[in-house]
Amino acid sequence: MINGVYLTQLKKMDSPGGRVFHALRSNEEGFSSFGEAYFSEIEPDKIKAWKRHREMTLNLIVPRGEIKFVLMDDRKEEKKVFQEEILSLKNYCRLTIPPMIWVGFQGLSRSNSLLLNIANLIHDPDEVDKKNIEEIEYDWRKLI
Amino acid sequence: MINGVYLTQLKKMDSPGGRVFHALRSNEEGFSSFGEAYFSEIEPDKIKAWKRHREMTLNLIVPRGEIKFVLMDDRKEEKKVFQEEILSLKNYCRLTIPPMIWVGFQGLSRSNSLLLNIANLIHDPDEVDKKNIEEIEYDWRKLI
Repeated sequence: MINGVYLTQLKKMDSPGGRVFHALRSNEEGFSSFGEAYFSEIEPDKIKAWKRHREMTLNLIVPRGEIKFVLMDDRKEEKKVFQEEILSLKNYCRLTIPPMIWVGFQGLSRSNSLLLNIANLIHDPDEVDKKNIEEIEYDWRKLI
Repeated sequence: MINGVYLTQLKKMDSPGGRVFHALRSNEEGFSSFGEAYFSEIEPDKIKAWKRHREMTLNLIVPRGEIKFVLMDDRKEEKKVFQEEILSLKNYCRLTIPPMIWVGFQGLSRSNSLLLNIANLIHDPDEVDKKNIEEIEYDWRKLI
Protein backbone atom coordinates (compact mmCIF):
# COMPACT_ATOMS: atom_id res chain seq x y z
CA MET A 1 0.00 0.00 0.00
CA ILE A 2 1.09 3.56 -0.69
CA ASN A 3 1.74 5.54 2.49
CA GLY A 4 -1.37 7.58 3.38
CA VAL A 5 -3.77 5.62 1.16
CA TYR A 6 -6.65 3.93 2.98
CA LEU A 7 -9.12 1.32 1.81
CA THR A 8 -12.16 1.15 4.10
CA GLN A 9 -14.80 -1.56 3.86
CA LEU A 10 -18.25 0.06 3.72
CA LYS A 11 -21.58 -1.29 4.97
CA LYS A 12 -24.38 -2.46 2.68
CA MET A 13 -27.77 -2.92 4.30
CA ASP A 14 -30.77 -4.77 2.91
CA SER A 15 -34.03 -2.90 3.15
CA PRO A 16 -37.47 -3.45 1.53
CA GLY A 17 -37.57 -1.68 -1.83
CA GLY A 18 -33.80 -1.30 -2.16
CA ARG A 19 -30.52 -1.50 -0.30
CA VAL A 20 -28.74 1.27 1.63
CA PHE A 21 -24.99 1.81 1.12
CA HIS A 22 -22.77 3.78 3.45
CA ALA A 23 -20.32 6.28 1.96
CA LEU A 24 -18.71 8.55 4.57
CA ARG A 25 -19.38 9.73 8.10
CA SER A 26 -17.81 12.77 9.72
CA ASN A 27 -16.79 10.75 12.79
CA GLU A 28 -14.80 8.19 10.79
CA GLU A 29 -11.05 8.03 10.93
CA GLY A 30 -9.57 9.84 7.98
CA PHE A 31 -12.34 12.40 7.64
CA SER A 32 -10.98 15.93 7.95
CA SER A 33 -13.46 18.35 6.40
CA PHE A 34 -16.06 18.54 3.67
CA GLY A 35 -15.29 20.63 0.61
CA GLU A 36 -17.20 19.16 -2.29
CA ALA A 37 -18.96 16.03 -3.52
CA TYR A 38 -19.20 15.23 -7.22
CA PHE A 39 -19.79 12.27 -9.52
CA SER A 40 -17.63 11.12 -12.43
CA GLU A 41 -18.96 8.73 -15.01
CA ILE A 42 -16.55 6.38 -16.75
CA GLU A 43 -17.52 4.62 -19.95
CA PRO A 44 -16.66 0.94 -20.62
CA ASP A 45 -12.91 0.43 -21.10
CA LYS A 46 -12.28 4.19 -21.11
CA ILE A 47 -9.39 5.57 -19.08
CA LYS A 48 -9.05 8.93 -17.34
CA ALA A 49 -5.39 9.45 -16.45
CA TRP A 50 -3.36 11.09 -14.93
CA LYS A 51 -4.24 13.67 -12.31
CA ARG A 52 -2.53 14.69 -9.10
CA HIS A 53 -4.10 16.96 -6.50
CA ARG A 54 -1.51 18.94 -4.61
CA GLU A 55 -3.83 19.79 -1.69
CA MET A 56 -7.06 17.79 -1.99
CA THR A 57 -7.69 14.48 -0.24
CA LEU A 58 -10.06 12.26 -2.23
CA ASN A 59 -12.64 9.82 -0.88
CA LEU A 60 -13.67 7.60 -3.78
CA ILE A 61 -16.75 5.36 -3.75
CA VAL A 62 -18.21 3.33 -6.65
CA PRO A 63 -22.01 2.90 -6.34
CA ARG A 64 -22.50 1.61 -9.88
CA GLY A 65 -20.42 -0.57 -12.19
CA GLU A 66 -16.77 -1.43 -11.60
CA ILE A 67 -13.73 0.84 -11.77
CA LYS A 68 -10.01 0.10 -11.63
CA PHE A 69 -7.98 2.80 -9.91
CA VAL A 70 -4.26 3.04 -10.45
CA LEU A 71 -2.30 5.13 -7.98
CA MET A 72 1.31 6.14 -8.47
CA ASP A 73 3.46 7.62 -5.73
CA ASP A 74 6.61 9.40 -6.87
CA ARG A 75 7.06 11.46 -3.71
CA LYS A 76 10.34 9.65 -3.12
CA GLU A 77 12.33 10.38 -6.22
CA GLU A 78 14.31 7.17 -6.19
CA LYS A 79 11.30 4.85 -6.47
CA LYS A 80 7.85 4.93 -8.03
CA VAL A 81 5.25 2.92 -6.09
CA PHE A 82 2.09 1.71 -7.86
CA GLN A 83 -1.13 0.56 -6.20
CA GLU A 84 -4.15 -0.87 -7.99
CA GLU A 85 -7.64 -1.18 -6.54
CA ILE A 86 -10.87 -2.38 -8.15
CA LEU A 87 -14.02 -0.95 -6.57
CA SER A 88 -17.65 -1.87 -7.17
CA LEU A 89 -20.76 -2.68 -5.12
CA LYS A 90 -19.34 -6.20 -4.86
CA ASN A 91 -16.04 -4.94 -3.41
CA TYR A 92 -17.72 -1.99 -1.72
CA CYS A 93 -14.96 0.11 -0.18
CA ARG A 94 -13.97 3.73 0.17
CA LEU A 95 -10.56 4.60 -1.27
CA THR A 96 -8.96 7.56 0.50
CA ILE A 97 -6.12 9.18 -1.43
CA PRO A 98 -3.94 11.88 0.14
CA PRO A 99 -2.49 14.81 -1.87
CA MET A 100 0.51 14.33 -4.20
CA ILE A 101 -0.49 10.89 -5.54
CA TRP A 102 -1.02 10.43 -9.29
CA VAL A 103 -4.41 8.83 -10.01
CA GLY A 104 -5.89 7.24 -13.11
CA PHE A 105 -9.00 5.10 -13.52
CA GLN A 106 -10.68 2.83 -16.02
CA GLY A 107 -14.27 1.63 -16.48
CA LEU A 108 -14.41 -2.18 -16.23
CA SER A 109 -18.18 -2.59 -16.49
CA ARG A 110 -20.10 -3.20 -19.73
CA SER A 111 -22.19 -0.11 -19.00
CA ASN A 112 -21.13 3.24 -17.55
CA SER A 113 -19.63 3.11 -14.07
CA LEU A 114 -20.13 5.83 -11.50
CA LEU A 115 -17.65 7.29 -9.05
CA LEU A 116 -18.48 9.57 -6.13
CA ASN A 117 -15.67 11.72 -4.81
CA ILE A 118 -16.17 13.36 -1.44
CA ALA A 119 -13.26 15.77 -1.25
CA ASN A 120 -12.01 17.92 1.62
CA LEU A 121 -11.65 20.99 -0.64
CA ILE A 122 -13.68 22.70 -3.33
CA HIS A 123 -12.40 21.94 -6.82
CA ASP A 124 -9.68 24.39 -7.84
CA PRO A 125 -7.89 23.80 -11.17
CA ASP A 126 -4.79 25.53 -9.77
CA GLU A 127 -4.08 22.69 -7.33
CA VAL A 128 -4.37 19.96 -9.98
CA ASP A 129 -1.45 18.62 -12.01
CA LYS A 130 -2.11 16.65 -15.16
CA LYS A 131 -0.08 14.26 -17.27
CA ASN A 132 -0.98 12.55 -20.51
CA ILE A 133 -1.63 8.84 -20.19
CA GLU A 134 1.66 7.87 -21.84
CA GLU A 135 3.74 10.05 -19.51
CA ILE A 136 3.48 7.47 -16.73
CA GLU A 137 4.44 3.99 -17.80
CA TYR A 138 1.65 1.58 -16.92
CA ASP A 139 0.07 -1.26 -18.88
CA TRP A 140 -3.66 -0.53 -18.70
CA ARG A 141 -4.48 -3.80 -20.51
CA LYS A 142 -3.14 -6.03 -17.78
CA LEU A 143 -5.50 -7.63 -15.30
CA ILE A 144 -4.77 -7.49 -11.61
CA MET B 1 -43.13 25.01 -2.60
CA ILE B 2 -42.91 23.98 1.04
CA ASN B 3 -41.21 26.62 3.20
CA GLY B 4 -37.52 25.72 3.66
CA VAL B 5 -37.35 23.25 0.76
CA TYR B 6 -34.88 24.15 -2.00
CA LEU B 7 -34.46 22.75 -5.48
CA THR B 8 -31.06 23.64 -6.94
CA GLN B 9 -30.10 23.02 -10.55
CA LEU B 10 -26.77 21.18 -10.69
CA LYS B 11 -24.06 21.30 -13.35
CA LYS B 12 -23.32 18.43 -15.74
CA MET B 13 -20.05 18.66 -17.63
CA ASP B 14 -19.02 16.68 -20.69
CA SER B 15 -15.57 15.18 -20.52
CA PRO B 16 -13.76 12.53 -22.61
CA GLY B 17 -14.52 9.08 -21.18
CA GLY B 18 -17.55 10.16 -19.14
CA ARG B 19 -19.40 13.17 -17.77
CA VAL B 20 -18.86 14.92 -14.44
CA PHE B 21 -21.86 15.80 -12.28
CA HIS B 22 -21.82 18.29 -9.44
CA ALA B 23 -23.48 17.33 -6.15
CA LEU B 24 -22.70 19.75 -3.30
CA ARG B 25 -20.10 22.36 -2.43
CA SER B 26 -19.43 23.70 1.04
CA ASN B 27 -19.65 27.32 -0.19
CA GLU B 28 -23.14 26.90 -1.61
CA GLU B 29 -26.15 28.53 -0.07
CA GLY B 30 -28.00 26.05 2.11
CA PHE B 31 -24.91 24.07 3.13
CA SER B 32 -24.49 24.04 6.89
CA SER B 33 -22.25 21.14 7.85
CA PHE B 34 -21.33 17.63 6.76
CA GLY B 35 -22.53 14.73 8.85
CA GLU B 36 -22.88 11.73 6.58
CA ALA B 37 -23.26 10.69 2.96
CA TYR B 38 -25.06 7.48 1.99
CA PHE B 39 -26.79 5.90 -0.97
CA SER B 40 -30.28 4.43 -1.12
CA GLU B 41 -31.32 2.17 -3.93
CA ILE B 42 -34.98 2.11 -5.00
CA GLU B 43 -36.34 -0.72 -7.12
CA PRO B 44 -38.76 -0.10 -10.03
CA ASP B 45 -42.19 1.08 -8.81
CA LYS B 46 -41.23 0.42 -5.17
CA ILE B 47 -42.09 3.04 -2.56
CA LYS B 48 -40.26 3.93 0.65
CA ALA B 49 -42.61 6.02 2.78
CA TRP B 50 -42.89 7.78 5.22
CA LYS B 51 -39.98 9.17 7.22
CA ARG B 52 -39.49 12.46 9.01
CA HIS B 53 -36.17 13.63 10.41
CA ARG B 54 -36.62 15.87 13.42
CA GLU B 55 -33.10 17.36 13.22
CA MET B 56 -31.41 16.30 9.98
CA THR B 57 -31.41 18.39 6.81
CA LEU B 58 -31.27 16.20 3.69
CA ASN B 59 -29.54 16.98 0.39
CA LEU B 60 -30.90 14.50 -2.17
CA ILE B 61 -29.29 13.84 -5.55
CA VAL B 62 -30.23 11.17 -8.12
CA PRO B 63 -27.22 10.07 -10.21
CA ARG B 64 -28.95 7.02 -11.71
CA GLY B 65 -32.52 6.30 -12.78
CA GLU B 66 -35.51 8.44 -11.88
CA ILE B 67 -37.13 8.95 -8.49
CA LYS B 68 -40.33 10.70 -7.45
CA PHE B 69 -40.12 12.40 -4.07
CA VAL B 70 -43.27 13.31 -2.19
CA LEU B 71 -42.89 15.80 0.66
CA MET B 72 -45.61 16.54 3.17
CA ASP B 73 -45.51 19.48 5.55
CA ASP B 74 -47.87 19.29 8.51
CA ARG B 75 -45.98 21.80 10.65
CA LYS B 76 -49.07 24.01 10.57
CA GLU B 77 -51.79 21.87 12.03
CA GLU B 78 -54.64 23.39 10.04
CA LYS B 79 -53.24 22.52 6.59
CA LYS B 80 -51.12 19.78 5.06
CA VAL B 81 -48.95 20.96 2.16
CA PHE B 82 -47.68 18.43 -0.40
CA GLN B 83 -44.79 18.91 -2.83
CA GLU B 84 -43.75 16.46 -5.55
CA GLU B 85 -40.41 16.46 -7.35
CA ILE B 86 -39.03 14.06 -9.94
CA LEU B 87 -35.23 13.90 -10.02
CA SER B 88 -32.95 12.15 -12.52
CA LEU B 89 -29.85 12.95 -14.57
CA LYS B 90 -32.25 14.57 -17.06
CA ASN B 91 -33.73 16.85 -14.39
CA TYR B 92 -30.47 17.02 -12.46
CA CYS B 93 -31.16 18.97 -9.28
CA ARG B 94 -30.39 18.82 -5.59
CA LEU B 95 -33.42 18.67 -3.33
CA THR B 96 -32.75 20.18 0.10
CA ILE B 97 -35.27 19.18 2.76
CA PRO B 98 -35.25 20.79 6.21
CA PRO B 99 -36.17 18.90 9.39
CA MET B 100 -39.81 18.10 10.24
CA ILE B 101 -40.99 17.34 6.68
CA TRP B 102 -42.46 13.89 5.90
CA VAL B 103 -40.70 12.29 2.92
CA GLY B 104 -41.54 9.33 0.70
CA PHE B 105 -40.05 8.26 -2.61
CA GLN B 106 -40.75 5.90 -5.48
CA GLY B 107 -38.54 4.36 -8.20
CA LEU B 108 -39.80 5.43 -11.63
CA SER B 109 -37.07 3.80 -13.73
CA ARG B 110 -37.24 0.32 -15.24
CA SER B 111 -34.02 -0.57 -13.42
CA ASN B 112 -32.91 0.35 -9.90
CA SER B 113 -32.58 4.05 -9.21
CA LEU B 114 -29.93 5.51 -6.93
CA LEU B 115 -30.22 8.31 -4.42
CA LEU B 116 -27.36 10.06 -2.67
CA ASN B 117 -28.17 11.84 0.58
CA ILE B 118 -25.58 14.25 1.93
CA ALA B 119 -26.90 15.00 5.39
CA ASN B 120 -25.76 17.53 7.97
CA LEU B 121 -25.87 14.96 10.78
CA ILE B 122 -24.81 11.37 11.29
CA HIS B 123 -27.73 8.94 11.08
CA ASP B 124 -29.40 8.53 14.44
CA PRO B 125 -32.58 6.40 14.61
CA ASP B 126 -33.73 8.45 17.62
CA GLU B 127 -34.32 11.55 15.52
CA VAL B 128 -36.37 9.73 12.84
CA ASP B 129 -40.16 9.39 12.92
CA LYS B 130 -41.84 6.77 10.75
CA LYS B 131 -45.35 6.25 9.46
CA ASN B 132 -46.78 3.41 7.42
CA ILE B 133 -47.53 4.32 3.83
CA GLU B 134 -51.31 4.38 4.40
CA GLU B 135 -51.06 6.76 7.36
CA ILE B 136 -50.59 9.74 5.04
CA GLU B 137 -53.22 9.97 2.34
CA TYR B 138 -51.51 10.24 -1.03
CA ASP B 139 -52.25 8.54 -4.36
CA TRP B 140 -48.88 7.06 -5.40
CA ARG B 141 -50.35 5.87 -8.74
CA LYS B 142 -51.04 9.37 -10.01
CA LEU B 143 -48.64 11.02 -12.41
CA ILE B 144 -47.43 14.56 -11.89
